[in-house]
Amino acid sequence: MKREKGLLIVLSGPSGVGKGTVCGALRQHDTDIKYSVSATTRSPREGEQNGINYFFKSKEEFEKMIEEGEMLEYARYVDNYYGTPRAYVTEMIEKGYDVILEIEVQGALQVKESFPEGVFIFLMPPSLNELRSRIEGRGTETGDLIESRMTVARDEIELMDKYDYVVENDEVELAVERIKSIVTAENCKKDRLIHQYKQLAEE
Amino acid sequence: MKREKGLLIVLSGPSGVGKGTVCGALRQHDTDIKYSVSATTRSPREGEQNGINYFFKSKEEFEKMIEEGEMLEYARYVDNYYGTPRAYVTEMIEKGYDVILEIEVQGALQVKESFPEGVFIFLMPPSLNELRSRIEGRGTETGDLIESRMTVARDEIELMDKYDYVVENDEVELAVERIKSIVTAENCKKDRLIHQYKQLAEE
Repeated sequence: MKREKGLLIVLSGPSGVGKGTVCGALRQHDTDIKYSVSATTRSPREGEQNGINYFFKSKEEFEKMIEEGEMLEYARYVDNYYGTPRAYVTEMIEKGYDVILEIEVQGALQVKESFPEGVFIFLMPPSLNELRSRIEGRGTETGDLIESRMTVARDEIELMDKYDYVVENDEVELAVERIKSIVTAENCKKDRLIHQYKQLAEE
Repeated sequence: MKREKGLLIVLSGPSGVGKGTVCGALRQHDTDIKYSVSATTRSPREGEQNGINYFFKSKEEFEKMIEEGEMLEYARYVDNYYGTPRAYVTEMIEKGYDVILEIEVQGALQVKESFPEGVFIFLMPPSLNELRSRIEGRGTETGDLIESRMTVARDEIELMDKYDYVVENDEVELAVERIKSIVTAENCKKDRLIHQYKQLAEE
């Protein structure tokens, strides 16, 4: 089926879970997925190229883009802005390409406001799983450690509740395969296809 | 994540679309999916084994199973009954296995009444797609042929509307890969996982 529009896929999860590594590994696979390029006001590091690693912007340029609604999401860390320009994402989706954004949790929630129809994937550290087996093993951890793990678990569950899918990052290649499967499955969803078929039958 | 329950996957679609071929090819792949065995009142053909190809039942046995609600779905063709015994499906799902049923459209709609949480996949003939390219090519078909194709298309669209996914059977191996992706993606769905994580964090 020729596609009318691509999907917006948002890959996010807690800090340190390995979003960048998983996204980098996904890029090594042969897919038609397009990767969004972030904008930033920080200076390019050696070897970084404008439009490849980042779109490098001045503070004034970046703030103008925010004001004009050209940022799908953005955040300020220390003295620099980081964000996702809306134009590239929208253009690729309109052309029928699936686009992936690899961003922090707060950014993902901002994107959801503009793109509720996006596919939101929460990359999960394996610790939650380990938690179960450790608790099941019993007696190997002190009460304090169990408590602190529980706090982390509860925070992560709060975050994942806003997402469509939860992918465990136990092994990078397994996580990549799950993400590819999610993209394939989403492209087979009846709700995304039936509209086109109806048009076709009515033509 | 250790799974609490498996998925019920229903593979269906119009007669002649190749459900049996696709399901047979899927069985050649190394997955943990379990395949439901149908019951029938027809006589075994040479080489067919009870409990492998079918559960062979007398008419009285089959009718008793219907009465006692032991059939997930059933239909009568000519003088014989065909149906899906509920017990095997429920047992495997409770054990955490995904179970696939390959059945006719009417049966799939019966199953949906018992298992609204099932994953309903509509296997689609490639003709609907061909339809688009042929119409786009224009002038190569007579008005009558276009009309009859349109009638088929409309009927198929009515059917697919009850399903979750639409998989095109353009090539058997591609259809199999799409089905495997759907099963993987469904097992990553947040709604199917968060309940377990919440329990875990509260323990």
